[in-house]
Amino acid sequence: MSSENTGLPVRSEILQLQPCVHGGLVRETAQKYNLDESDLLDFSASLNPLGTPFQYYNCSLEELVSNNTEKLTRYPDNRYLEFRDAAAGFIGNQDRENIIPGNGSCELIRLVAECVVEKGDQVIIPQPTFDEYELQCRIFGARPVYINYSEIPQISDELLNSSKILFVCNPNNPTGELLSRSILKDLADRCAETSTLLFVDEAFIELSDPEQSVAELVKDNNFVFVMRSLTKSFAIPGIRVGFGVASQKLANVLDNARLSWNMGFVSDVVGTKLLKMKGGVYSSYFRDSRKMIDRERKYLIDRISRIHGFTPLDSSVNYILVDVSESVMDSKELSQRLAARGILVRDCSSFCSLGDEFIRVAVRNSEDTDKLAKNIGELLTEWGQEQGNKYLESKLESASTGNHSGRSTCEYYPCHYPGQDCTFCFCPFYPCEDERTGGQYIKSTGGGKVWSCSDCHIIHREKIVEQVLDVLMDENGDTKQNLNKAWERIVEPLL
Amino acid sequence: MSSENTGLPVRSEILQLQPCVHGGLVRETAQKYNLDESDLLDFSASLNPLGTPFQYYNCSLEELVSNNTEKLTRYPDNRYLEFRDAAAGFIGNQDRENIIPGNGSCELIRLVAECVVEKGDQVIIPQPTFDEYELQCRIFGARPVYINYSEIPQISDELLNSSKILFVCNPNNPTGELLSRSILKDLADRCAETSTLLFVDEAFIELSDPEQSVAELVKDNNFVFVMRSLTKSFAIPGIRVGFGVASQKLANVLDNARLSWNMGFVSDVVGTKLLKMKGGVYSSYFRDSRKMIDRERKYLIDRISRIHGFTPLDSSVNYILVDVSESVMDSKELSQRLAARGILVRDCSSFCSLGDEFIRVAVRNSEDTDKLAKNIGELLTEWGQEQGNKYLESKLESASTGNHSGRSTCEYYPCHYPGQDCTFCFCPFYPCEDERTGGQYIKSTGGGKVWSCSDCHIIHREKIVEQVLDVLMDENGDTKQNLNKAWERIVEPLL
Repeated sequence: MSSENTGLPVRSEILQLQPCVHGGLVRETAQKYNLDESDLLDFSASLNPLGTPFQYYNCSLEELVSNNTEKLTRYPDNRYLEFRDAAAGFIGNQDRENIIPGNGSCELIRLVAECVVEKGDQVIIPQPTFDEYELQCRIFGARPVYINYSEIPQISDELLNSSKILFVCNPNNPTGELLSRSILKDLADRCAETSTLLFVDEAFIELSDPEQSVAELVKDNNFVFVMRSLTKSFAIPGIRVGFGVASQKLANVLDNARLSWNMGFVSDVVGTKLLKMKGGVYSSYFRDSRKMIDRERKYLIDRISRIHGFTPLDSSVNYILVDVSESVMDSKELSQRLAARGILVRDCSSFCSLGDEFIRVAVRNSEDTDKLAKNIGELLTEWGQEQGNKYLESKLESASTGNHSGRSTCEYYPCHYPGQDCTFCFCPFYPCEDERTGGQYIKSTGGGKVWSCSDCHIIHREKIVEQVLDVLMDENGDTKQNLNKAWERIVEPLL
Repeated sequence: MSSENTGLPVRSEILQLQPCVHGGLVRETAQKYNLDESDLLDFSASLNPLGTPFQYYNCSLEELVSNNTEKLTRYPDNRYLEFRDAAAGFIGNQDRENIIPGNGSCELIRLVAECVVEKGDQVIIPQPTFDEYELQCRIFGARPVYINYSEIPQISDELLNSSKILFVCNPNNPTGELLSRSILKDLADRCAETSTLLFVDEAFIELSDPEQSVAELVKDNNFVFVMRSLTKSFAIPGIRVGFGVASQKLANVLDNARLSWNMGFVSDVVGTKLLKMKGGVYSSYFRDSRKMIDRERKYLIDRISRIHGFTPLDSSVNYILVDVSESVMDSKELSQRLAARGILVRDCSSFCSLGDEFIRVAVRNSEDTDKLAKNIGELLTEWGQEQGNKYLESKLESASTGNHSGRSTCEYYPCHYPGQDCTFCFCPFYPCEDERTGGQYIKSTGGGKVWSCSDCHIIHREKIVEQVLDVLMDENGDTKQNLNKAWERIVEPLL
């Protein structure tokens, strides 16, 4: 598509762009469902659940800003020397000259894409993974080739040879898988031979296992770029700040190509302060963070695994992928219904290869996790009732045409007893909460309680079905009134 | 150059990049000359001399930050609705859908370049102008074509037809020239016909004449992009924030292509607050700003024009271009010497077409302007003394080979009297400050006082020259000792 076709002076690659979907849509969700932002519980953005590190320093954002207000009226020192020194010290064994400052990690991905990709170049995107790699490369006309994330160690020389960049998110977003340093070291050596840039996204490495970082490989390899982010690790996504690590030769070229003053003074000052943290990735803040994440992730996995149809996958970091393909709702509907209740989880349907069968859930504290499990439980009950109502409506409709019948073709038939009448597959009185029917409250897998009526057969007796239908189809009352009438006249006398 | 030649996995355009030179290098200069940052007087960054607008609001940066700290731990709402509403209201007659938020104006230039330019495309860069247009377009393989800024209104259809973008900085940086709305309106119509994007950089329009803004032309023209910046107008370069204005169709595409969360929460909150200012570009803050700029620019031009060899050009805005081609120093030496004294002016030798003959000076208050003029005056005296010393040294050297002579080929000969001896073109005793010689202090053009010895001929008498040379060449003393001796033995007796 050229500008002649669209009337716009932009390249065809740009016209086709759809921005990536991301988690953390707190305000958008609050507006959509008319909720208070502060009431939202966000499991969709994967931030360090320990919170910001300011208390470990006895300082605050306000102080850092108010101690540096003179920087507001000056251009930032575009060399960002202190920040780069701090970043080099943070990851260890690096010099300032290896560091490229970035206004958040997205800017670093874009920078690498725009510096490396020529139109038509092939780039390797292991699936599933963070969407931005593909988007940023597509802007510059790259052709993505997909492999499974698990195939990374066995990637062929042929594929490497024909590709400009191999993106490896480690630990991987959204799966939480972590590749070992030695696997990546081998890969880096191979990439140097095939002149393929190995882009390693270590945005979450501090919250996983920093021993597996490959930042030091850049020393003698011009074909490795390591991306680090402060957003997630320090739980400060409101401030955009990250950095790239590369050989001095490559870093110098990328630093030349980045925007002047890409970081404002707040990112610069706060980033520098946090990166100067004593102990860096082994500071007490990060040791405490990893301990908390390990503990709370176990709890989260345990709680989620007890919900029918939810299968949490193992993870090395502060988020888990949950397979909901066996659940009654797909990932999209589940996420939307939870959002309406003020709980955000990440619908993974935007990750190509995950379909609508996965959600990503951030690790938070147990109290929050309990709320999540409780809400999912309630949601499933709510969903069951809605399905029942819908079913009832369609049954009433077909009954009014004299067409009601059993579900003899149902794969679950007979769920109660052979010969049962299946007209009311979903009981219209559910949950009746009347134990005289044989029903009772039981503990649900989500931790709450749920009304179980597996021992009640009343609504599956053919004669009862006919009587109930008669009452429900009475045009003088609405459905609710008729339901009450049917209960009183037909069910109640049987109890 | 491919990666085979350089050992780096980057495109050839990137390898050739040299980042733009910019003003405002406060920290760099302070470090280089061992000065205190707060003592520096910065005429190199063209900020609103009225200062930040916070006092007009009765608020402060600290307050804005501390009232919004909850935003630190959330991702910014990537739609930036409030900011875009505020920006649309600020320039008037626009909707949120016309606004593209930017992390400073450089990001917006880069965004347009990357969305529009295909390798080999031609872009028009009027000279002299802001360097970033060319740099950002070169990154994507554009071929710049230069015209004079004054030729913009008469640009040929042929040139427009063969070009993807025409960049117009209005008012122009570094000249301060302002093109009228009607000229730009004509140009916009022609650009729509030739499918050329008219990129109008209005970063300084609030400080010049906002009536000449062409932001409203985007309404029915997909080929106009107007860039606005908060950095200069509100004097807040430490915070990166600006925005683009385009037709809804074009804005939507560019907004899709910009980075997620390109503005951190501080830029978002502060930018939104300032853009909501009552009256917008016609607020009392901007009316006061323009009044001050007009007044102080006149004063600055007056002071500078009285310095020998300095010719300030007229300007519509808060900076002026000064032609120093007739001065004794080129722009580079002048800027460096001023920097060593803690005064920053913008050496314009990085603007292609300006050679080393121009400096750009920001409009500041009269007190600062006085300091600038005084320092330039002192610098010229200092320079005169240094030249005298150098000259003396070379004269002594040639005299020691028996080779001293008059300057009969000098274009100024005879500056004092016919037959004068020109060996000491620069008097080695300058400034002797002894009025018995006929010399005296006079008021300098820069406002200070300067020693004038146009009425003293002593050092140009042949016999005196020989006697002085004899003493100065005495190897038993250093130059300073010998100078004292020569004054006492030869000059003093003549007074």
